[in-house]
Amino acid sequence: MDGDGGYRPLTTETLPGRLAGVPALAARVGPDPAAWRVAEVGDGNLNLVFVVEGPAGDAVVKQALPYVRLVGESWPLPVNRTFFEWHALVRQDRRDPGSVPKVFHFDEAQSLLAMERLSPHVILRRKLIAGERVEGLGERLGRFCARAAFRGSDLALPAAERKADAALFLGNVDLMKITEDLVFTDPYFAAEMNSHTPGLEPAAARLRADDALKAEAQHLLRRYATAAETMIHGDLHTGSVMCTDRETRVIDPEFASYGPMGFDLGMLVANYLVAFLSQPAHRAAADLAPFQAWLLDTVGETFAGFEAEFRRLWAEERTGTLYPAALFEAQGRSSLPALEGVLGEIRRDALGFCGIEMHRRSLSLAHNADFESIGDVALRARLEARSLTLGRDLVMGRGSISGPAALLALARRRNGEDFL
Amino acid sequence: MDGDGGYRPLTTETLPGRLAGVPALAARVGPDPAAWRVAEVGDGNLNLVFVVEGPAGDAVVKQALPYVRLVGESWPLPVNRTFFEWHALVRQDRRDPGSVPKVFHFDEAQSLLAMERLSPHVILRRKLIAGERVEGLGERLGRFCARAAFRGSDLALPAAERKADAALFLGNVDLMKITEDLVFTDPYFAAEMNSHTPGLEPAAARLRADDALKAEAQHLLRRYATAAETMIHGDLHTGSVMCTDRETRVIDPEFASYGPMGFDLGMLVANYLVAFLSQPAHRAAADLAPFQAWLLDTVGETFAGFEAEFRRLWAEERTGTLYPAALFEAQGRSSLPALEGVLGEIRRDALGFCGIEMHRRSLSLAHNADFESIGDVALRARLEARSLTLGRDLVMGRGSISGPAALLALARRRNGEDFL
Repeated sequence: MDGDGGYRPLTTETLPGRLAGVPALAARVGPDPAAWRVAEVGDGNLNLVFVVEGPAGDAVVKQALPYVRLVGESWPLPVNRTFFEWHALVRQDRRDPGSVPKVFHFDEAQSLLAMERLSPHVILRRKLIAGERVEGLGERLGRFCARAAFRGSDLALPAAERKADAALFLGNVDLMKITEDLVFTDPYFAAEMNSHTPGLEPAAARLRADDALKAEAQHLLRRYATAAETMIHGDLHTGSVMCTDRETRVIDPEFASYGPMGFDLGMLVANYLVAFLSQPAHRAAADLAPFQAWLLDTVGETFAGFEAEFRRLWAEERTGTLYPAALFEAQGRSSLPALEGVLGEIRRDALGFCGIEMHRRSLSLAHNADFESIGDVALRARLEARSLTLGRDLVMGRGSISGPAALLALARRRNGEDFL
Repeated sequence: MDGDGGYRPLTTETLPGRLAGVPALAARVGPDPAAWRVAEVGDGNLNLVFVVEGPAGDAVVKQALPYVRLVGESWPLPVNRTFFEWHALVRQDRRDPGSVPKVFHFDEAQSLLAMERLSPHVILRRKLIAGERVEGLGERLGRFCARAAFRGSDLALPAAERKADAALFLGNVDLMKITEDLVFTDPYFAAEMNSHTPGLEPAAARLRADDALKAEAQHLLRRYATAAETMIHGDLHTGSVMCTDRETRVIDPEFASYGPMGFDLGMLVANYLVAFLSQPAHRAAADLAPFQAWLLDTVGETFAGFEAEFRRLWAEERTGTLYPAALFEAQGRSSLPALEGVLGEIRRDALGFCGIEMHRRSLSLAHNADFESIGDVALRARLEARSLTLGRDLVMGRGSISGPAALLALARRRNGEDFL
C-alpha cells in the first residue's frame, strides 16, 4: 500500500502485494500472496473485476474505476459507488439470504470489495444467447424482487429506518443520473452518445416523434427519481445475474437507490423479452420455438413468483407504517383491496419500466449482446424494431394490460410482425 | 445564556435577558432589553411563540418545546424540527419571495427562530370563522403552492441539489411520523388519542368499515411518505396562514418534508371546505349564502391560481432533469401532453389528500376551530358528517372528478344533505 492511502486502481500484478494484508482475503485464498493467481475478468461497463485463486480457495475483487469503462477517461465517475454497492449487498443478503455473493471485505478508500467467487456460475445473458435454460429462474428472481421490494419498504421497516436508508442512498446521485439520462431520456432524442443498428431509423424516428410516449417515459422517470418506496438494485438486467443450470445469484448493485417497488421486476422482464425477441438470430429452427416458449414461461414465472412471495410477506411480515393490521385484520376487516391496489401499481410500473428498458437497449449508449452479437445487420434491425414496438406497447398500455398472460400474448404477436 | 449552551425553554421573563445579545434582534426591537415587552401568544399544537415589542420595532420569537404542547410532556418530540422549519422558510422565501416571514436569527441549540412579526395579520382560520374575506386569497396561495412545488422539484432544480435536499428533509422523521399516523391512519380506526363530536358515531363507523376507502387512504399515505417530488410545507391549513384584508402570508413549515406536488394544495383546500361546511353554525341566514359562495370561489381560485402559475413555470423555468426541452420544444414537438399528465396527477393527489385531511379533522387528535367552536353539538355533528362524506367522495372519486368545477358542485350538494 502506498503511504497516503489514496485511491489507486489495482492491476493483476499489484493485487497480491496490495491485498496480502487483508485477513479475510488471505483466509479465503491462502496466506502466501506469491501463490495467488490473478486474472482481470471485468466485462461490464464500469469496473475492474479480478478473480484471485490460491491454494486455499478463490475470491473476486471488484474495484471501481474513476471513469466509465465503456467510454473511457473522458467520462469521469466517482468511485464512491462501491460504498453504495456494499450497503446494497449487505441489505440484499439480509432480505433474501443467499441471493447475492457474500462480501468479506470492503475498503472504502480503495473503492474495492472482496467477495465470494461464484463458480461455475456464468452470466445469465450468455446462457440465454447460447440457448441454455436455468431451472427455477423465473420463480427465483421473482422471489428476490419481492423480498427486496417488501422488506426494504415502509411495509416492513420502521419508518425512521426506511427514511434513513432512503437518505443514505440519495447520495448515489451520480449513478442515478446515468440511469435518468441514459435509460429514460436519451433514447427519445438524438443524444450525443446514442447509437443504433443501421436500418432501425424509421422505428427510432417513430418513437422520437411520439409526444404522448415521451410524456409517459418522463412520468416513469419522475417515479424512478422520486418514488423512494424501497431499495432497488437499479440495474437488474441479465448481465447482473449469474447462474448454473439450477442456481441463480444477483450481482452488481452499484446502481442501488430508493425507488419504485416495480422497477427491478420491470427491468429484468425487459431483458427476458429482449432475449426472446433476439432468439431468431441465435437458434436453429428446431430449437427456436421451445426456447422462446421457455423464455416467455420465465417471464410469467417471474411475475408469479413475485406476486406469490409478496402476498406471503403481506400476510406474514407487514409490520411497518403502511397498511397496518390495526386498520384491517385487527378489526376483522380485509386488507385484500389494499393489497390488490399495491400489486396493481407494481405491475403497471413494472410494465412501464420494462418498455423503457427495451427502448434504451436499442437506442441509447449501452446496448446488449442479445442484439449486438447478431452479425446480420438487417436481421438485427428487424428484431430490434419488434423490441421497440413492444416496448411502446408496454409504456402506453401499462394501465390496461390486464396481467402477465396479456403481456405474453402481446410479446408473441410482436415476435411475428415486421416494423421496418 | 447559561454556560453549557444546552436547550432551555424561554419564558416571557427570561427572553429579554437571554436574547439581548442577538444583534439582529436588538437591531429590530431596540438595544435595551429592559425596554422589551414580551407576550407569549402560541396557540398552535407544538411550540412557544413570543411577540417582542420595543422602542425600535417588534419581532416574533418561536421556540420548539420538547413535547407536543397539545398533549403535554407525556408525548416527547425532538426540538430539531426548528432546524427543518428554518431550512423550509429559507427555501420558501427564495421560491416565492415575500410569501413567508423574514427570518433574521436561527439558534439551533435553543431551537429558536427570530423573525418578522406579521401585523396586523391574523390567523386565516379566525377570519373565516368570523366571516371576513381576504382579497386575492385563492390566487395568492395557489401561486405559492405552484412556486414551491415547481421550484423545489426535478422540474427546476439540478438533480443533485434536489436529492441532497430530499435527503436533508428525510431527517424530519418525527414530524412526518405524526402526519403519517394522525392524518392518514388514526382516523380510520379507534386509535387511542382520537376524539369526535358526540353523535358522529354512525358516520365514523361507516368510514372505518370501508375497506376500499382505507386502502385508498393508505395508498395516499404511501405517496406522502415516499414520493419525494418537492419540498412541501406539510401542514398548510388555515391556521398556518396569516392575512390582512388584502395580504396573505404562510407560516409554520416545521412539518416540511419532500413529498407529492399536490399535498399542500389538497390540505389547504380541505381547510377551505371545512370552513365552508361549518358556516351554517357561524353565519346568520342573510350572510350565509354569500360567504359560502366566496369560500367556494376561493377553492376554485386556488386551483386556478396553482395551474396558471404552474403552466407559466413549465414554459419559462423547466431547466431540471424532468421533461427536458430536448425531448419536446427543441425538436419542434409539444410538451403539452406531458404537462397535462403532470397537472392531472397533481389534481388527483390533491383531491385525495384533501379528503383525508377532512376526515382527520373530525376523527383524529387535532381538530379545528371551524367545527370545535360550534356550541350546538347536534348541529356540529350534522355538519361534520357532511365533511366526512365529502372527504370520502374525494378520496374515492379523485380519479374521476373532472376538475375544480365538479368538486365545487359536489361540495354544494353535500352541504345540503344529512348523513346522521
